[in-house]
Amino acid sequence: MTTNLPQPGDEIHAWKLMGIERLERERRKGPSPPGPYEAIVAPQWNGLCGSDMHIYLTALLGEEKMKVPFVLGHEASGIVVEVGSEVRGLTVGDRVALEPGEGCGRCEDCKRGSYNHCDEMRFAAADGLDGTLQGLYKLPADLCYKLPDNVSLEEGALMEPLAVAVNAVTNIANLPHSANVVVFGAGPVGLLTMAVAKALGARRIIAVDVQAQRLEFARSYVATDIFVASRMKEGESKEAYSQRHAGDIRQSLGIADRGLESIDVVIDCSAAEVCMQTGMWLLRRKGTYVQVGCGPLYVKLPMRIIADRELTVKGCFRYGPGVYTRAIDLVSRGLIDLKPLVTHKYKWEDAVKAFETTKAGKGEDGQMAIKVMIGPPPRA
Amino acid sequence: MTTNLPQPGDEIHAWKLMGIERLERERRKGPSPPGPYEAIVAPQWNGLCGSDMHIYLTALLGEEKMKVPFVLGHEASGIVVEVGSEVRGLTVGDRVALEPGEGCGRCEDCKRGSYNHCDEMRFAAADGLDGTLQGLYKLPADLCYKLPDNVSLEEGALMEPLAVAVNAVTNIANLPHSANVVVFGAGPVGLLTMAVAKALGARRIIAVDVQAQRLEFARSYVATDIFVASRMKEGESKEAYSQRHAGDIRQSLGIADRGLESIDVVIDCSAAEVCMQTGMWLLRRKGTYVQVGCGPLYVKLPMRIIADRELTVKGCFRYGPGVYTRAIDLVSRGLIDLKPLVTHKYKWEDAVKAFETTKAGKGEDGQMAIKVMIGPPPRA
Amino acid sequence: MTTNLPQPGDEIHAWKLMGIERLERERRKGPSPPGPYEAIVAPQWNGLCGSDMHIYLTALLGEEKMKVPFVLGHEASGIVVEVGSEVRGLTVGDRVALEPGEGCGRCEDCKRGSYNHCDEMRFAAADGLDGTLQGLYKLPADLCYKLPDNVSLEEGALMEPLAVAVNAVTNIANLPHSANVVVFGAGPVGLLTMAVAKALGARRIIAVDVQAQRLEFARSYVATDIFVASRMKEGESKEAYSQRHAGDIRQSLGIADRGLESIDVVIDCSAAEVCMQTGMWLLRRKGTYVQVGCGPLYVKLPMRIIADRELTVKGCFRYGPGVYTRAIDLVSRGLIDLKPLVTHKYKWEDAVKAFETTKAGKGEDGQMAIKVMIGPPPRA
Amino acid sequence: MTTNLPQPGDEIHAWKLMGIERLERERRKGPSPPGPYEAIVAPQWNGLCGSDMHIYLTALLGEEKMKVPFVLGHEASGIVVEVGSEVRGLTVGDRVALEPGEGCGRCEDCKRGSYNHCDEMRFAAADGLDGTLQGLYKLPADLCYKLPDNVSLEEGALMEPLAVAVNAVTNIANLPHSANVVVFGAGPVGLLTMAVAKALGARRIIAVDVQAQRLEFARSYVATDIFVASRMKEGESKEAYSQRHAGDIRQSLGIADRGLESIDVVIDCSAAEVCMQTGMWLLRRKGTYVQVGCGPLYVKLPMRIIADRELTVKGCFRYGPGVYTRAIDLVSRGLIDLKPLVTHKYKWEDAVKAFETTKAGKGEDGQMAIKVMIGPPPRA
Repeated sequence: MTTNLPQPGDEIHAWKLMGIERLERERRKGPSPPGPYEAIVAPQWNGLCGSDMHIYLTALLGEEKMKVPFVLGHEASGIVVEVGSEVRGLTVGDRVALEPGEGCGRCEDCKRGSYNHCDEMRFAAADGLDGTLQGLYKLPADLCYKLPDNVSLEEGALMEPLAVAVNAVTNIANLPHSANVVVFGAGPVGLLTMAVAKALGARRIIAVDVQAQRLEFARSYVATDIFVASRMKEGESKEAYSQRHAGDIRQSLGIADRGLESIDVVIDCSAAEVCMQTGMWLLRRKGTYVQVGCGPLYVKLPMRIIADRELTVKGCFRYGPGVYTRAIDLVSRGLIDLKPLVTHKYKWEDAVKAFETTKAGKGEDGQMAIKVMIGPPPRA
Repeated sequence: MTTNLPQPGDEIHAWKLMGIERLERERRKGPSPPGPYEAIVAPQWNGLCGSDMHIYLTALLGEEKMKVPFVLGHEASGIVVEVGSEVRGLTVGDRVALEPGEGCGRCEDCKRGSYNHCDEMRFAAADGLDGTLQGLYKLPADLCYKLPDNVSLEEGALMEPLAVAVNAVTNIANLPHSANVVVFGAGPVGLLTMAVAKALGARRIIAVDVQAQRLEFARSYVATDIFVASRMKEGESKEAYSQRHAGDIRQSLGIADRGLESIDVVIDCSAAEVCMQTGMWLLRRKGTYVQVGCGPLYVKLPMRIIADRELTVKGCFRYGPGVYTRAIDLVSRGLIDLKPLVTHKYKWEDAVKAFETTKAGKGEDGQMAIKVMIGPPPRA
Repeated sequence: MTTNLPQPGDEIHAWKLMGIERLERERRKGPSPPGPYEAIVAPQWNGLCGSDMHIYLTALLGEEKMKVPFVLGHEASGIVVEVGSEVRGLTVGDRVALEPGEGCGRCEDCKRGSYNHCDEMRFAAADGLDGTLQGLYKLPADLCYKLPDNVSLEEGALMEPLAVAVNAVTNIANLPHSANVVVFGAGPVGLLTMAVAKALGARRIIAVDVQAQRLEFARSYVATDIFVASRMKEGESKEAYSQRHAGDIRQSLGIADRGLESIDVVIDCSAAEVCMQTGMWLLRRKGTYVQVGCGPLYVKLPMRIIADRELTVKGCFRYGPGVYTRAIDLVSRGLIDLKPLVTHKYKWEDAVKAFETTKAGKGEDGQMAIKVMIGPPPRA
Repeated sequence: MTTNLPQPGDEIHAWKLMGIERLERERRKGPSPPGPYEAIVAPQWNGLCGSDMHIYLTALLGEEKMKVPFVLGHEASGIVVEVGSEVRGLTVGDRVALEPGEGCGRCEDCKRGSYNHCDEMRFAAADGLDGTLQGLYKLPADLCYKLPDNVSLEEGALMEPLAVAVNAVTNIANLPHSANVVVFGAGPVGLLTMAVAKALGARRIIAVDVQAQRLEFARSYVATDIFVASRMKEGESKEAYSQRHAGDIRQSLGIADRGLESIDVVIDCSAAEVCMQTGMWLLRRKGTYVQVGCGPLYVKLPMRIIADRELTVKGCFRYGPGVYTRAIDLVSRGLIDLKPLVTHKYKWEDAVKAFETTKAGKGEDGQMAIKVMIGPPPRA
């Protein structure tokens, strides 16, 4: 396989975003030689995520207009084709997952282990940098994580969203031992969050979503309980709905205010205001709420509940040091199975279909899309 | 002085709430003899607080109607007049601050040090219990905290609101070493919160309020910086105001996003939605926001800021074990001076005036009211 | 079964310690009626532990001489036969595990959730109190923990040592997610510690002991790796041995200094000086060492290693609030199987044999003793 | 002054260690040009510390023989004479404190904020690297910390030992609010540790040492209480002494087992076994012990006390991210006064006298030496 990989100096293929919903294939020069601590990798698989979709559909990052064109892709695995002179422990031919964000390494945030808050962070396909949807990609060697033999390159490409979930559950939620966890949103990040919670010993993992089909998947995957969110009633306010909704979930699933059957942690991966509200109503005293999905700038939250129950509400943003290593290990040890999440795989030349499938939420086959992947680029 | 105290068996005086803004003096039987671990105290000074005022003006606790009549008062000091057979370390004549809430001691919340969340909590003048505005008051002896010689009974009555502040700054905010702290609201609890932050080594203590006069007091008291909140502009949304407001505070006071001059902790004692919003905009990455003042059930909050900056938002509710002891010690060691806060003192028979002064925010003398106190009841 | 239980007012059976290795059966009056928040339980099964054995063999508690005679037993399950007037949630006939220590509930240690440090703690068969090896036993109702239907009374009697393990792994070690853990000592507490670590998601559980047979059991039970400790060489100092021993364990089991294959937590349940030393040599930088087994007052420890690697060394003493509930839940959910640990069961009248089997470390059958149990007393 | 500084390209002066107690002056070439993120600094003041002395007297680092010759010095301030092309926020002429250790920035320890544990750490005058006792010194620009106008270059050279103290008190001990702290050893690091504890709000700071003169200094400096350690009695074991000693300290200073007058934190800066033992006997339940001074590899410790009282014993090694910034700020804000510590200052050419004074513990003047400083090298 390695013999077919683009080599340093080769002209390479890339998929560039030209504007709203406009992708274009390109032939381009490959990267310049690696610095002493850098590596050049031939990306093999790329996964698509919500933020790719947001960029594809709006050409916005958050609320900022992005400067097009640039190469998309930030969930990738690949094979090392060249390493810098000082690189140790990484060699040509190694199969790796790629961490797509490079902190400056010199600011106080980087030094204290918060490189996700580095002001000079260079993030693939986000901070004016070309992404991984191209034939060769240069990055610091310490952002290449070797895949054990029992982890495939397809799985390797999913380490990025898995890292988001691992970070949320460990560093942010600091998942208590044997915790009862409610996860709102059964999309890819929600499902991965549930999978991490399970792998780390959560007691109950309750999935809440509006789509029954997604919840059925969640149950067959890792959730111990599911709850199909009801619709808002005619004229019902969001706040009235949320409180009613929380009551329904409690009753239906036997959730208590205190003790073993109370909710220790809520993680919202839905970005929906009513889910955030419902989640806070569900928590036990001193429980923890974590916001993963990112919705509107402002939402209405039940601050009096936060105060009276002494809740802790925390945000999370990407991931930090050590997270990729943990993510790969959980997969390698068989505690998390990524394969069922990959519902659609497209060849390099069908990248546009991959974006369209993600946009539609289902493939041409009509099958629900969870994770959509784009395969390796041709050598030349 | 002790000789004039009501004694067990005496008929006693009390001030009862009969309905909205209706206080009534009463003569009544004193308490039954103390159990083996109980004490009977003759309350001397009572302070008035925002929740007293809320109850006085609405006869509501939170949003619940309270069952009148009952005796008011929960910020009190007193002198021990009788102790139960098994009480050790507390004797007749001891001057004490009274902790007004009694947990059941048997539930998991009580046992794990969260008696403020006890479902059977009995709180003076709140949970259907008569309060401390009466001649004699019976309580568990371990809720009586002896006052050192250099702490007066008037100061002792302020240990209750000081305990709220100590809890918020220590147990909830977990004040980092040398932290920069912003406190919204320069009323009694806000001022006490600033005082605690200072006593525990905060680097900058920035007071924000709409009333310049209160801020002048805050500066003369403990704040290192003050900021008089501007008014909302015609047609300006709360959210636009908050973001602008945060920008103004940053610029005016030299606040940075990162490093030494960034804001580590925001504590809101104002309960105003725009303050909560502004506070979140002010915090550095991974900063901590604490809600002390309790406003409307729902408020609009900048959840995307919480997520992107990985803020921690925490509520707090009263106080827990060890807090009174710490509060008294801070005063006794001279690190907190409570005296300047007592702007108005009324005799027992003028209790109605005390409530009216608190309601008006100033006395008949026109002087700004911060803390209003009611003196000892007559013996008979 | 319930019909055969001793009832309030009955004369009851008890096993008393009269002096070193002297047990005596006794008929005695049952307890006085329960207070409003108390319950009377008929103990069914009693387990024996190392501290029972220490007391049996020396009549010492720690280094203090105990005042004999008193009733032994503190690992017990039972059936409720009477409850006080104010008891809620517990009724006659309930099958329960008994927590044997009662804090005063009024001191600061008790209130802040550290009742194990209460100065007035009353602990069964330890603090001058009769224990559970008798027909009826009175205790606060909140120290009775109901057993789910799928947890037997025999298992219920093992909640006490399991609580020690749960406390060590959760509250003291604060087991990190996916941690590599080394446990020294494969006796009952060591095995339970390993079982808890596994139930809470530990990555590797490495058992170290001098007895191969115990380690074989540990492997068949929950350990992922075992290491039979070698003997000290002629003339080798303990310190030289420990450093060599740690090197052997590292090499044999592929333990690294850093990263995924480094040791996050060491828990010593052996009380042997060389194990403590070896454990500290094994830990990664910033790793955590927990001392469960209690050996000599002084031991030689590698303080320079503690300093250079910034280790955290923590002691633990019994357990605190919420631990029993967690322990029972882990068993009920099938995450911990207590049955394999019970190697020997004796009838009430054969209690002396139970002590002798524990002393010998094996039964008359020659089979290795792990946990030895004594069955229910006769009614009359 | 700046005009007299050595400039890039100049030949420079240096003091090299040639062997045990053998220092030699040298003229040598200055450093090569700075990389893009590096700076070249002209060191001005150098402080001497215990580890310098250890190296000077033994040519050992820990127990390893160091490869001589090399330039000594790691506690230094200086003036920037050149910066690399990408350096921002640092310019020629800036007065700076120098952090002497450079992590690799790529390993997991560095990335997670533990660069003090980096396996490729390059530490001035320790890891085979020349130190700061020379005319020019090149280092990463982010290890240069600008000194505010009110902090002198002499004080700047003391930021290194102050960083050790700040790290011990904040990151390792995590000094609780209003803590009672005992510090063993009133040498420079012990005194700085006391000063940091005071600056961060410690309640009592109790200094223990064998030298009354040092303790007098400690009291005049920052300690609230001092205790002159008595001598061991004829035939008394260290362990008997320690327990007696702890009792004497308790009684003499009114230290309690629990509550306000109990000891929350012990920090040992003496490296003496009896101090470590005494410290553990002094702590309250759940108290924290921190080892700063580094003595023999093995010491005898009261493990049963660690267990029964659930102590936390922690080591510390140098310092990590953010510590220098905090140290400088504490001095700049006037919370720590470094000037009284500087008892002896020597000119560059008298460096040998500086080492001899440190070795003797007093100067030729007979005055007790605390901190001994060596002044700026000549330009040429």
